[in-house]
Amino acid sequence: MTPKVGIVGYRGYSGAELVRLLERHPSVQPVLLDHRSEDGARSPIRDSNPPVRLPCSPETITNEGLVIVFLATSPEVSMDLAPAMLHAGACVVDLSGAFRLGNPETYSAWYHETHSQPAFLADAVYGLPEYFRGRIPAARLLSNPGCYPTAANLAIAPLVQAGVVDRSAGIVCDAKSGVSGAGRKPSLKTSFCEVTENFSAYNILRHRHVPEVLMVSHLEEREFSFTAHLLPIDRGILETIYFRATGVERAEDLLAIYEKRYSAEPFIRLYEPGHSPDLRAVARTNFCDIGVTFDARSGRAVVVAAIDNLVKGAAGQAIQNMNLMLGLPETEGLL
Amino acid sequence: MTPKVGIVGYRGYSGAELVRLLERHPSVQPVLLDHRSEDGARSPIRDSNPPVRLPCSPETITNEGLVIVFLATSPEVSMDLAPAMLHAGACVVDLSGAFRLGNPETYSAWYHETHSQPAFLADAVYGLPEYFRGRIPAARLLSNPGCYPTAANLAIAPLVQAGVVDRSAGIVCDAKSGVSGAGRKPSLKTSFCEVTENFSAYNILRHRHVPEVLMVSHLEEREFSFTAHLLPIDRGILETIYFRATGVERAEDLLAIYEKRYSAEPFIRLYEPGHSPDLRAVARTNFCDIGVTFDARSGRAVVVAAIDNLVKGAAGQAIQNMNLMLGLPETEGLL
Amino acid sequence: MTPKVGIVGYRGYSGAELVRLLERHPSVQPVLLDHRSEDGARSPIRDSNPPVRLPCSPETITNEGLVIVFLATSPEVSMDLAPAMLHAGACVVDLSGAFRLGNPETYSAWYHETHSQPAFLADAVYGLPEYFRGRIPAARLLSNPGCYPTAANLAIAPLVQAGVVDRSAGIVCDAKSGVSGAGRKPSLKTSFCEVTENFSAYNILRHRHVPEVLMVSHLEEREFSFTAHLLPIDRGILETIYFRATGVERAEDLLAIYEKRYSAEPFIRLYEPGHSPDLRAVARTNFCDIGVTFDARSGRAVVVAAIDNLVKGAAGQAIQNMNLMLGLPETEGLL
Amino acid sequence: MTPKVGIVGYRGYSGAELVRLLERHPSVQPVLLDHRSEDGARSPIRDSNPPVRLPCSPETITNEGLVIVFLATSPEVSMDLAPAMLHAGACVVDLSGAFRLGNPETYSAWYHETHSQPAFLADAVYGLPEYFRGRIPAARLLSNPGCYPTAANLAIAPLVQAGVVDRSAGIVCDAKSGVSGAGRKPSLKTSFCEVTENFSAYNILRHRHVPEVLMVSHLEEREFSFTAHLLPIDRGILETIYFRATGVERAEDLLAIYEKRYSAEPFIRLYEPGHSPDLRAVARTNFCDIGVTFDARSGRAVVVAAIDNLVKGAAGQAIQNMNLMLGLPETEGLL
Repeated sequence: MTPKVGIVGYRGYSGAELVRLLERHPSVQPVLLDHRSEDGARSPIRDSNPPVRLPCSPETITNEGLVIVFLATSPEVSMDLAPAMLHAGACVVDLSGAFRLGNPETYSAWYHETHSQPAFLADAVYGLPEYFRGRIPAARLLSNPGCYPTAANLAIAPLVQAGVVDRSAGIVCDAKSGVSGAGRKPSLKTSFCEVTENFSAYNILRHRHVPEVLMVSHLEEREFSFTAHLLPIDRGILETIYFRATGVERAEDLLAIYEKRYSAEPFIRLYEPGHSPDLRAVARTNFCDIGVTFDARSGRAVVVAAIDNLVKGAAGQAIQNMNLMLGLPETEGLL
Repeated sequence: MTPKVGIVGYRGYSGAELVRLLERHPSVQPVLLDHRSEDGARSPIRDSNPPVRLPCSPETITNEGLVIVFLATSPEVSMDLAPAMLHAGACVVDLSGAFRLGNPETYSAWYHETHSQPAFLADAVYGLPEYFRGRIPAARLLSNPGCYPTAANLAIAPLVQAGVVDRSAGIVCDAKSGVSGAGRKPSLKTSFCEVTENFSAYNILRHRHVPEVLMVSHLEEREFSFTAHLLPIDRGILETIYFRATGVERAEDLLAIYEKRYSAEPFIRLYEPGHSPDLRAVARTNFCDIGVTFDARSGRAVVVAAIDNLVKGAAGQAIQNMNLMLGLPETEGLL
Repeated sequence: MTPKVGIVGYRGYSGAELVRLLERHPSVQPVLLDHRSEDGARSPIRDSNPPVRLPCSPETITNEGLVIVFLATSPEVSMDLAPAMLHAGACVVDLSGAFRLGNPETYSAWYHETHSQPAFLADAVYGLPEYFRGRIPAARLLSNPGCYPTAANLAIAPLVQAGVVDRSAGIVCDAKSGVSGAGRKPSLKTSFCEVTENFSAYNILRHRHVPEVLMVSHLEEREFSFTAHLLPIDRGILETIYFRATGVERAEDLLAIYEKRYSAEPFIRLYEPGHSPDLRAVARTNFCDIGVTFDARSGRAVVVAAIDNLVKGAAGQAIQNMNLMLGLPETEGLL
Repeated sequence: MTPKVGIVGYRGYSGAELVRLLERHPSVQPVLLDHRSEDGARSPIRDSNPPVRLPCSPETITNEGLVIVFLATSPEVSMDLAPAMLHAGACVVDLSGAFRLGNPETYSAWYHETHSQPAFLADAVYGLPEYFRGRIPAARLLSNPGCYPTAANLAIAPLVQAGVVDRSAGIVCDAKSGVSGAGRKPSLKTSFCEVTENFSAYNILRHRHVPEVLMVSHLEEREFSFTAHLLPIDRGILETIYFRATGVERAEDLLAIYEKRYSAEPFIRLYEPGHSPDLRAVARTNFCDIGVTFDARSGRAVVVAAIDNLVKGAAGQAIQNMNLMLGLPETEGLL
């Protein structure tokens, strides 16, 4: 029997992307869980297969036999809902930042509020399959990575592990994201007239996604400079990463590190030296594309990494995690 | 009598911006010089003041008494035209890269072709008024700075001069530009369908504008990492600049360096610490806006600089230089 | 002494455009009137001439000697504020729809609420200078036209007056507007991710701007089909108007009607037959550009009219009216 | 064995969309046919399944056993290639306008050049499945409809057939298209800086797609006014259609006509009265969405139809036709 999976927050951009991807997933059946009254979307009257909608409650989950519930909600709502969902017997895949950081102190330092469910932090599994694939199948509370850290860690961690980063000079990650990363709630900052023909930096050096990079890539905060920018596009994240390489002679040496680390990874694509991805290459896909540039005389290196923030940066990676949790092929519904 | 100034390349984006700005300049009269047959633009029949159009030749310049000729052309065309213009008695303001670098070797290294007029390089004046104002009034061949270096030098040079940059760690300049910076000639790279909802890096670590920054800010190439990116907007450049500061305790210390250096500058605007400019703030203006962020614990600093690439990055700065060359108020026609 | 003019609603898109245009107007001094606490905008600390800001009250107007107050507010707020402003001795230029329609019944029919100040409707002057120039200088309450009707009436009224429209077949006006026409208040409909790469019709056959066209162009509702559309751009309105022409043999005959009617108009520009304006041609200007196409065999005609919705469609036209009210040259500050 | 299908012009926007859709089609194997040297696209080195590429020649088609060749080329190239392809034994699905109009005179009148292969016009089948489904399976030369006429005919033909259109007043079709409809060849008109924040009408009353509407919807040219517009978006066509309805009392009556005509159609979606589609609803789908508005007092009706110009307007409809020609389920690979 096809397992049922629930989605809370299906009207938001990440939630809607989850619905879009799960509707064509061959091995699960999506159910929309109504957390609160959500505004209706116009839809054609001939749309013959309206999705099942249910109230969001532990009873629903128990009665309907939902095996996994996706929380595409704010950290506050995720902290409210996750314990009851787990108690009702469902596994939880949380797309918010609520359970990503291992302890409540780090959470408070970056989210500027007290964590209301600290007891759940220790057992939450950080769902970056390329790094924590072994722990994901047994996870009951899976914390889906942030969009910026997904690209950053996939680009940076292999280099740090290989020991080619001159950490004394630090790593710069200049990150640019489409507007959907800011969520669907209307605000002046994401209004069309404010964004079109504009571009700006925000959260300079203090974005709440930074600790996820420190945690996975094993960096100190003083070694990692991160600035987020708002692109006048719907979706996509491109990060331009600068560092000084040691023990490296050619761009091919850097590429070889990635080749070795990611040879079996289905969602990492590498570019030949001198080439780098654009956002069009990854739009609506679960790929993370990576390109390398290197100046041999000075040791300066630049890595460009690109993902779709709503897919590999949110809903797609959540489904990749779901596949692992359900014992399905990791790429099912994602290629 | 109002001095006449000629414009070659008035159909290109920089040239058209020159025409737009010069038409409302109170103290000069613009004349369009037809270098070659240019495609006509549709215009309303009631547009009552069509600009004067003349063939582009030394005779024209002599007969019409043009005191300055703007070359909004490619480096190749500028090298072709500048000598004859100068010989005919006009001063030249060249918006191309032809005469920006002080010697033909540097030109060849970055432009990948031999300089055809090396004899003119020594006397060309680099027209960044904030740094070379004293030499501009007497210039006969004025070389207008590149768009990227204008923002980069205005942001970086004061810091290097003040000695607060840890040069061993290097400076990263992550630059993003609107599409008009690529010129008006149609190409697949600047086609609407390729650019919209897209974003990409290009000329990573090897953009031809780099040597202008090394020259003005007195940096070594190995100290300066520059990557250009293409924004899906018409106009604007935003540069995010990363470095480690020494001898600095607070963001206000960095701001004070700028305040001191630029207190008398009419086209530099500074932001309070924690704030930084967006492109909307500088669109269609000759301003360069600068904002500073600083992490006192680690010494990491980020400077964001924004200009309109067609104004302070091209036509506006060219008029600022013209004003200085003609003894007019420096801001005339630009506020 | 330079007369002072007040602006209520200066944070909205029309109000901000008023401020932008009035700041460079040589003959008036703008004063911002704070109707309620408005969100602050980031601005550079070097912005040396912050505008004067005052509370919005009749006392302010009396004490400060404001001769005109612009209301860039909603109809509800305009109905609240206009009577007190007038009582305090200022003339009012209202950019809302509150006082455009001559009687409260028409207002109720199209705005779906009762008019709270019906006594002021009779004396309000509809400020389309090309049609009501004679009445504007003496106006105390000037009602600035809607953006869509400005383009529509300037295109349609001369044709109806000349008797060349086959009214039995009706006139179709297919109108497209940039997002700034919807105002600055954040909403899902004007969020970047909802608008970019999208396009839609709204208020089909029942837009509240329709009665302004019926009133000025002397049409019956059944003769005029109007649909508004939302363009994924910041500013600009383009209307494509279809009708069957009688007594016309060539496109030039239609053009001649416009030429005759608008020969002395400073803000109307006409195109040669076969050409029509795009929005770029009118952006940031007070012009209304008009082009004509005609099929002689069938009598079908198409007129394309373009304006900037924030300038000729709002703030620019308001200043044009102000100039007339103050006895200034009509084009002052607008060319 | 999976039938092989060839694609000529796979670098163009319609051709690339064909490749994208055919790569995930379960029942055919796409082969790229190189008509001439085409510019390479950057692609990641890990893209493990590069498509088969072959020279474009009758020998290729014979040897490789291609059963269908798609021509995503200009009319001129299609006229050159189609006869040889047919002679070599392949069926041809031509996406150009070369074979859409039944006789060479009509072609000359609208395409302004002589048809070089008039002998093939009589047997070419016009591939609008909703109207010519019966003839498509036996077609050897299938002419895929134009993008504008696809939406226009699906919206207009049922109304004309039902006799509810007051033809004396005429039908207005105001059509707006994304830039991909203009093809991939770089030109100033489709350059980013010319299109962004802009909007314009083109080919007013004389677009070459008009005769396809006259042919399918059985209209006279004098009854049908069509204007195309260029939207600053990548993909999508929205058409706003105006007419006077006779014998109709409510919007539901118009909707009922569509319901009856399209009850079995898999790719037509209808909206409730008062609602109409936007382009987001049909992006990257093969649907044509239709909404109806009606003013009972005056009989004025507006129909809004939306498609993705590259899918239902080109590649998707071509695959729909291919499915019918190969005896596959009509929706295969398209849902």
